[in-house]
Amino acid sequence: MPQSKDSGDLPDFADVQLAAARIRDRVRETPVIHEPELDDAFGCQLFFKCENLQRTGAFKFRGASHALARLAEDGITGDVATHSSGNHGAALALAARLEGRCAHVVMPENASRVKIEAVRRYGGEIHFCAPTQAAREEGLASRVESGAIAVPPYDHPDIIAGQGTACLELLQRIPDLDSVLAPIGGGGLISGTALVARERGLTVFGAEPAGADDTARSLELGRRVASSQPDTIADGLRALVGVRNFTLIQRHVKQVITVSENEIREAMAVAWRHLRLLIEPSSAVVIAALRSSADTFAGRRVGVILSGANISPADWLALTANPAGSHEAHDAAT
Amino acid sequence: MPQSKDSGDLPDFADVQLAAARIRDRVRETPVIHEPELDDAFGCQLFFKCENLQRTGAFKFRGASHALARLAEDGITGDVATHSSGNHGAALALAARLEGRCAHVVMPENASRVKIEAVRRYGGEIHFCAPTQAAREEGLASRVESGAIAVPPYDHPDIIAGQGTACLELLQRIPDLDSVLAPIGGGGLISGTALVARERGLTVFGAEPAGADDTARSLELGRRVASSQPDTIADGLRALVGVRNFTLIQRHVKQVITVSENEIREAMAVAWRHLRLLIEPSSAVVIAALRSSADTFAGRRVGVILSGANISPADWLALTANPAGSHEAHDAAT
Repeated sequence: MPQSKDSGDLPDFADVQLAAARIRDRVRETPVIHEPELDDAFGCQLFFKCENLQRTGAFKFRGASHALARLAEDGITGDVATHSSGNHGAALALAARLEGRCAHVVMPENASRVKIEAVRRYGGEIHFCAPTQAAREEGLASRVESGAIAVPPYDHPDIIAGQGTACLELLQRIPDLDSVLAPIGGGGLISGTALVARERGLTVFGAEPAGADDTARSLELGRRVASSQPDTIADGLRALVGVRNFTLIQRHVKQVITVSENEIREAMAVAWRHLRLLIEPSSAVVIAALRSSADTFAGRRVGVILSGANISPADWLALTANPAGSHEAHDAAT
Repeated sequence: MPQSKDSGDLPDFADVQLAAARIRDRVRETPVIHEPELDDAFGCQLFFKCENLQRTGAFKFRGASHALARLAEDGITGDVATHSSGNHGAALALAARLEGRCAHVVMPENASRVKIEAVRRYGGEIHFCAPTQAAREEGLASRVESGAIAVPPYDHPDIIAGQGTACLELLQRIPDLDSVLAPIGGGGLISGTALVARERGLTVFGAEPAGADDTARSLELGRRVASSQPDTIADGLRALVGVRNFTLIQRHVKQVITVSENEIREAMAVAWRHLRLLIEPSSAVVIAALRSSADTFAGRRVGVILSGANISPADWLALTANPAGSHEAHDAAT
């Protein structure tokens, strides 16, 4: 997309408002769920913004839809392309189809079958490559040479503004929150969220797996770490935080809470038991953070963004059936 | 509860409106989800009222909350009781706790562990009995002798009026529907739904497993069949339709569609794949009916009530992993 690579082009709150107007007819207004029983258990008031129930099963559809709306506004026609082994590919595929475009998705040949089929189902054209970062970037470069416009997954002003619309909707529904909490992978969701939340005077918290804590480490270091060896079940949060994303996190996020793998598994079971929502591990990190940092949130009114549901029920079951999580998972049905 | 046993005391639309006002602070306003991709697949416009995301995981919480609100209004204090192996017991337990009452739930000793734990979690007091209808009724009679007020699961005006509030909310959100579709077990949900839908000029459809088609057979016969040998995975729909419920169905429901077990399994997979909702078999019958009676719904704007989510993910997986359903289930994650 026609944007420079530095972080000088940061979006702001007005950009999120414009994004919301642009994608209104495309994205689903997702529900906000409040469960008093969970409030009692957690010692605070929780309002869950259910992006797991967004189209394509993740908030990613907001950013992708917005990026394509902006291209159309600028009169830029033609195919789009990205490399993805996850939710951004499927989101871009559907967003492109709704605009009458084709999305080329470069995917590692070892990507999971379900993710491959999701991209295909939404009309994306898949280009397999070797499962390395170099091969993925090469594959994408080749699509761009063929004339497709690259749409990055998170480090782009239009993507960030699009992801921020989830928090905007949340605050339209529940105006009197004092905090908001979102997961951090590449940082698209948290940075868009922060633009909205800070404008409204909310405190912003992020959550990250301890096994993919590059953002927490970067904040401590005062600069973005250049590499990371992520090791977590939260596959959507393995990406290195983006340049623009990190800048916005540094400015606006009060604290990044890291959680263990076991806490993530337990949080998945909690979401099912109390909310009847089957969520992916990347989405459960926020519930894990609420539990592990109960003192931080005590007495607050917290908006909690659940980011996605893209896990197969079989994988969900395998992840929650570990020794520590099994009791909770198996108590799940009522 | 202080009501006569005949069908002379039928609730009407105004009763549902009053019920909605009474339970407003108790029940969750559940989301309505619309997915254009499903519309394309089904050839009609579908608006899913997600009672699977209601508190206690089922619409049953509406009726139970309303029955208790009415008792309070009439100045009737004290404990309540019911016999249940399913969702009504849990719903009554929570509704009672919120009113500062105790709910006695007579449960067959072979009830599933998860359902037992749900009742317990919501503060209900469990009384185990032999797994026969006679033992259950005896157990309940014994609680009533001890002073508890019996709250029946579906054949009661206050319960019917309470269940109708789901359709009222649906029409507040999407006023221009032309049809509504709900599952039929004991008939509490469909009869309440019909009171609202007919008042607004909608056509009302019901759905039932072929293995528990007592309502369809009763309609054909022109009178309520007195017994049934239900054989279906839709455990919430095994009950014999109630007296008041059947009267309202006869008056207001245009057609009851019966579906096969395999269609139910496939429909569960469809709900996950397209909506990211994990629903119980009793809830999936409506999606099965939409598929099997596509001509009936072609071009219509249909409100579809998803009744509950109370199944363990492990059981969900086992049910959808049959030969016919496995392909769909395994494509589930995107």
